[in-house]
Amino acid sequence: VGTPPTPPSLRVALVQLNPLIGDLDGNVAAMARAYAQAEAAGCDAAVFGELSVAGYPPEDLVLRSGFAAENLAAVTAFAAGTGRCAAVAGYVAAEGGRLYNAAAVCAGGAVVGTYRKQRLPNYRVFDEERYFEPGTSFDTFVIGGVEAGVAICEDIWVDDGPLGDMVAAGARIILNPNGSPYHRGRLADRTALVSGLAARNGCPIVYVNLVGGQDELVFDGGSMVVDATGAVVARAAQYAEEVLVVDIPFRTSSRGDSPSDDSPPARRSQPVVVSGAVERTTVAVPAVSPPLDPLDEVAGALVLGIRDYVRKNGFTDVVIGLSGGVDSALVAALAVEALGAQHVHGVSMPSRYSSDGSRTDAELLAANLAVDIQPVPIEPAFASYLSMLEPAFAGRPHDLTEENLQSRIRGTILMAMSNKFGWLVLTTGNKSEVATGYFTLYGDSAGGFAPIKDVLKTDVWALCRHLNARAGRELIPVAIIDKPPSAELRPDQRDDQSLPPYEVLDPILRLYVEEDLAIADVVARGHDEALVRRIARLVDVSEHKRRQGPPGVRISVKAFGKDRRMPITNGYRG
Amino acid sequence: VGTPPTPPSLRVALVQLNPLIGDLDGNVAAMARAYAQAEAAGCDAAVFGELSVAGYPPEDLVLRSGFAAENLAAVTAFAAGTGRCAAVAGYVAAEGGRLYNAAAVCAGGAVVGTYRKQRLPNYRVFDEERYFEPGTSFDTFVIGGVEAGVAICEDIWVDDGPLGDMVAAGARIILNPNGSPYHRGRLADRTALVSGLAARNGCPIVYVNLVGGQDELVFDGGSMVVDATGAVVARAAQYAEEVLVVDIPFRTSSRGDSPSDDSPPARRSQPVVVSGAVERTTVAVPAVSPPLDPLDEVAGALVLGIRDYVRKNGFTDVVIGLSGGVDSALVAALAVEALGAQHVHGVSMPSRYSSDGSRTDAELLAANLAVDIQPVPIEPAFASYLSMLEPAFAGRPHDLTEENLQSRIRGTILMAMSNKFGWLVLTTGNKSEVATGYFTLYGDSAGGFAPIKDVLKTDVWALCRHLNARAGRELIPVAIIDKPPSAELRPDQRDDQSLPPYEVLDPILRLYVEEDLAIADVVARGHDEALVRRIARLVDVSEHKRRQGPPGVRISVKAFGKDRRMPITNGYRG
Repeated sequence: VGTPPTPPSLRVALVQLNPLIGDLDGNVAAMARAYAQAEAAGCDAAVFGELSVAGYPPEDLVLRSGFAAENLAAVTAFAAGTGRCAAVAGYVAAEGGRLYNAAAVCAGGAVVGTYRKQRLPNYRVFDEERYFEPGTSFDTFVIGGVEAGVAICEDIWVDDGPLGDMVAAGARIILNPNGSPYHRGRLADRTALVSGLAARNGCPIVYVNLVGGQDELVFDGGSMVVDATGAVVARAAQYAEEVLVVDIPFRTSSRGDSPSDDSPPARRSQPVVVSGAVERTTVAVPAVSPPLDPLDEVAGALVLGIRDYVRKNGFTDVVIGLSGGVDSALVAALAVEALGAQHVHGVSMPSRYSSDGSRTDAELLAANLAVDIQPVPIEPAFASYLSMLEPAFAGRPHDLTEENLQSRIRGTILMAMSNKFGWLVLTTGNKSEVATGYFTLYGDSAGGFAPIKDVLKTDVWALCRHLNARAGRELIPVAIIDKPPSAELRPDQRDDQSLPPYEVLDPILRLYVEEDLAIADVVARGHDEALVRRIARLVDVSEHKRRQGPPGVRISVKAFGKDRRMPITNGYRG
Repeated sequence: VGTPPTPPSLRVALVQLNPLIGDLDGNVAAMARAYAQAEAAGCDAAVFGELSVAGYPPEDLVLRSGFAAENLAAVTAFAAGTGRCAAVAGYVAAEGGRLYNAAAVCAGGAVVGTYRKQRLPNYRVFDEERYFEPGTSFDTFVIGGVEAGVAICEDIWVDDGPLGDMVAAGARIILNPNGSPYHRGRLADRTALVSGLAARNGCPIVYVNLVGGQDELVFDGGSMVVDATGAVVARAAQYAEEVLVVDIPFRTSSRGDSPSDDSPPARRSQPVVVSGAVERTTVAVPAVSPPLDPLDEVAGALVLGIRDYVRKNGFTDVVIGLSGGVDSALVAALAVEALGAQHVHGVSMPSRYSSDGSRTDAELLAANLAVDIQPVPIEPAFASYLSMLEPAFAGRPHDLTEENLQSRIRGTILMAMSNKFGWLVLTTGNKSEVATGYFTLYGDSAGGFAPIKDVLKTDVWALCRHLNARAGRELIPVAIIDKPPSAELRPDQRDDQSLPPYEVLDPILRLYVEEDLAIADVVARGHDEALVRRIARLVDVSEHKRRQGPPGVRISVKAFGKDRRMPITNGYRG
């Protein structure tokens, strides 16, 4: 708040909220509270994220017979509470049996205009063409004396999107609600895109993202304002709700001042006049949250993903099998950050093959994290199964069967703790294991949420070291980070008896899984052909196991889940 | 084969094959064998199913860097073996970085033309807009002296599809490759559609479907020829491969004979001339397989779905937990039909709560089906778990935890049998249970394939009675069909203590799940509101459990799986 009088400007609130999918009443109530803040701050406009009323992505809820009507009712109720400040609120709109991904411009107690998203992403994790028809026209809106266009998410990501037409039609600013999920480096991608687009069109862009976890997706926030030169002049925090108020300077003049354009604008009609300019006696000094360090960015996504999956699904506490290995250590540390140590419960389940070190490492980890740890040795159940199965197995030698048995006993114990105490089981498998099928179905994969299923093993180690460095102490005992990985399901077992070293494996998985390269193309990048074929085969034949695993946080450009939809029955060998 | 000379006709082979997704070499080899049959029969054309080279749906295999190039190589290799008979073969085509769902017209050793699908389904189980660009033009092809259009699947299902333009351009017959998955009543839908379309356009349609199971989908075949009056003049079997040869009468004349049309055809150019008319001295008398009885149709889908999932994934044998209940009885009977009794193995796993009747019923079932049955009583493991968990549970009363424990012990035993002997575990849950979450995750839902997961309980009973009637004996003991359903996980447990009677439940599930009706709309159909709300809530909160279940055969218009993509984290209560 500075010295009066100030140069003419548009005051905009970037409202970065964390909705709950389908909780229309709850979402609208949160929007109304944020709107009141924006209005109290003297804003001309308050911009919400994509489909803010419904949450994003609502998936097949959109197809339920009452969903669109309830969206309309909710956005209408929200609009009834609006005043001078124009709110841009996302909702699922219906007309003539067709559905649209829409934004309502609300002011003075009513919906004064709408915009329908024109470009519908239908790739990677997105399925919008399953639900929506594309919009084909737009209005502009005079807000605080400045003509504004509204474009939703994908609209600005395509070369021939409507933004250019909006500017040609007279828009001097673009209000842009988004539902853009996190993957590594995504904030930098977005910033480059929005910045270039603003500079090319000589037009500031108000980019508002959602925040929060929704099943496997995490929306990372990082909403921003980019000015007409492409400079980022405001940025909201990542991974947190925020109402960020920004003054964007304009000469609040008539449309005649906008650059002349010979091509006819693709606009429906004259601009919808919502509000004129006001004189202000204060300046809103915008925050520019710096982007997070790359590993903090990943950790932030994992922590928010855990917290929101747990809490939005009605849980408060989680239970984790602590093996003394690095994967369960990382999951426990992240869960403590997400939920607090008193809400995280460890179970140690040693077998006849567990080393003494594993048990003491697990206990040290629990002590360092201040979480409780309950020992439940699995030998009695293991011995029972072996004798129960003896007649059926008729003297056949021990093999993978007996290894899986131990893992399934542990899964059964964790689920029993979950059933008895109402704790959600977090699984501890990393992406290298999930990719190659190096896990036991209904064993270590048994649980409600898989926080690190999209984190390769080499990144697990990097994250552990990073969390320790950030904490300034051994949050995760170094002995756990440094020991050779082992499942400890038979004497002297080590991962590298079944898999290549993770430093060799992970780059192959990146190329084969995340970049979808053919085996020949992976080999052309300098990897051993026999090894690549073996790894590719492991990935392919494990599809049926992955399908039965719990969801987990997506942090890569291609996670297992909605992102990679491979057939189980699959004869392809390329 | 009849008396010479015959009236002029086009002789077409409907080649209804069962491809393996992604096995391009194997699929093309099978196509070449069928093509040789067609050519030996003097056919002018051999029409294959949609994406016959790749199999349908190839899902994200399409995105792999080498897939389209390998499709082109495979279809080119196939074309090299063609002679006079024109083959219409489906493949994934690429041009300028874009992908197309295409059909190649092959003759004389080469690809002589292509067609790109114009209408891409992106609803229910279909995701074609994720992969493909729509085609925008077409050629016609003179085959055996008759001008023909090629339209792929969805192209003929939309009102403004290209078929009308093809007829206007001069096409006198439409060759129509399809990948149309089964659901109840689908053959009748297709017949009505194709018949109406042929009659309206005065143009015969050669409708060729795939056959076979692919994960949750079953392609049911039933390929057909409909003449210009809309009459079905040939139909291939359901659920079996077939090369069906049909003579379709035409005056094989120049295009000048086709009805004049004032509007310009949307065709690219002059027709591609493939072959002229030949005189024949024989008549191919087409088969018209009658449609199956409705319950045989369902059973056929389930049997083929089981057989193909098992065999295409490299298994020969399955193992089933036989409880003495009706669900496992039906699954066992279907598996015997699919694989033969010697490939089906039963395990009986009684607990302290199992009735004597259950065990004897399971043994009688096994005897009736001639499958082996191995008893593995679960008490030793159950007792071990109870004592192992005693310190952690600290005297808390028995509850659902101990019920789930028993189910998970059974799941673990079946998986151990699977690991030791290489048998695939078939689960036995029905759609009523899967919908309401009335099953134990990692317990009775543990397994590789869930044959009846889309079969409501009332239909389970109907199918059991039908299989007995068809067999003329008690394949499934009537005592099993008639007993009150129980999970037998506590003393005197019965399903109707947790759920309404299935006769009440199933109609509500049809409306809420299969028709996606809002709760209010289900109530408006005459169901009790409190009950509908309770059932809807059970369905919604069980989404996380369903996600971790194995795939199973889709027989309804909306199965759990690719068909119904609900968020797990979900605050919607409509």
